[in-house]
Amino acid sequence: MKKGLLIVISGASGTGKGTVCKELLARAPGIAYSISATSRAPRAGEEDGREYYFRTRAEFEAMIAAGEFLEYADVYGNYYGTPLRPIEERRTAGEDILLEIDTQGALNVMERCPDGTFIFLLPPSYEELRRRITGRGTDTAECIAERLAAARDEIRLGKRYRYAVMNDTVGDAVARIQTILAAERLRADRDLTQFDFDI
Amino acid sequence: MKKGLLIVISGASGTGKGTVCKELLARAPGIAYSISATSRAPRAGEEDGREYYFRTRAEFEAMIAAGEFLEYADVYGNYYGTPLRPIEERRTAGEDILLEIDTQGALNVMERCPDGTFIFLLPPSYEELRRRITGRGTDTAECIAERLAAARDEIRLGKRYRYAVMNDTVGDAVARIQTILAAERLRADRDLTQFDFDI
Repeated sequence: MKKGLLIVISGASGTGKGTVCKELLARAPGIAYSISATSRAPRAGEEDGREYYFRTRAEFEAMIAAGEFLEYADVYGNYYGTPLRPIEERRTAGEDILLEIDTQGALNVMERCPDGTFIFLLPPSYEELRRRITGRGTDTAECIAERLAAARDEIRLGKRYRYAVMNDTVGDAVARIQTILAAERLRADRDLTQFDFDI
Repeated sequence: MKKGLLIVISGASGTGKGTVCKELLARAPGIAYSISATSRAPRAGEEDGREYYFRTRAEFEAMIAAGEFLEYADVYGNYYGTPLRPIEERRTAGEDILLEIDTQGALNVMERCPDGTFIFLLPPSYEELRRRITGRGTDTAECIAERLAAARDEIRLGKRYRYAVMNDTVGDAVARIQTILAAERLRADRDLTQFDFDI
């Protein structure tokens, strides 16, 4: 059994991570989203291990203490986080896991999972980034300037990723990502064992 | 100008490196073979820097002493070798350079050019490798056994490469290599500078 890929898709805000990830999953149904853990109560129809891993606050805090989270946050009194162990277990079972994560979170994942496939999404140009951030609506000029500066800082982090993919159109961006995944499946550290050599 | 790729294709003897490289160049005319240096005299029609870099024995030996060769050999009194500097100069000018090299040579290239794209060709199976080695003709059983053992030793080196490509059919092997090259062209250390961000 070949270990599944950990596909980490990140990028500055305004680069369209969510749309690209959704389209990737639509085209490549073999890939599954990473499942977060939360301390909030399950809603009707939600199942542990499907929508979320549901944990009590005490359990969640024990997991924090044990260093089990790639990242976590306390949102209005409920914890949300990305636990590493289920990702590794699912990869060992051969599943490809997709993790959509902000740039800071991705740097943590690089340290904990150096064998991941790290893809940085870029807007096609600075002008287009400005247009997207401005186009969100009613923000003040000052607020927009701050967001642009923050986005530029984030884009500088892109050099630390293995791959950079321009999100000019969602279709082209997803096609580029699928090319990357096809190549990653040919990596020697995954593939030598599939041959029937006694090595 | 984006730096060109250094495409290093290697593999145990009997895996069809030469055929695969020839077909890759036919399909991707933008890629150019690495040019060797030699101390033999140019033949009619040969040009310095096209078929070979032609050097005197003294010049060649000075290059050896200066550590300019990725590998070299003395073949019946003439030196042949792969100089690193022209590869780097051509890559800097944007050319993709293909280097077809044996497994020992490839390990040297990994040390000197860690940003290369290292691809290890594999026969589809051990049985097929045996068939190819046996099929060469009139070798003794002992000689064939030695070659097979040597090929297995070489195949163990494949783990040190980034990519492993099965050469079941030449067309499929070349298609896999082209996928790898398309992904390598999306590497962040090459591609971030192509965007018009001030980073």
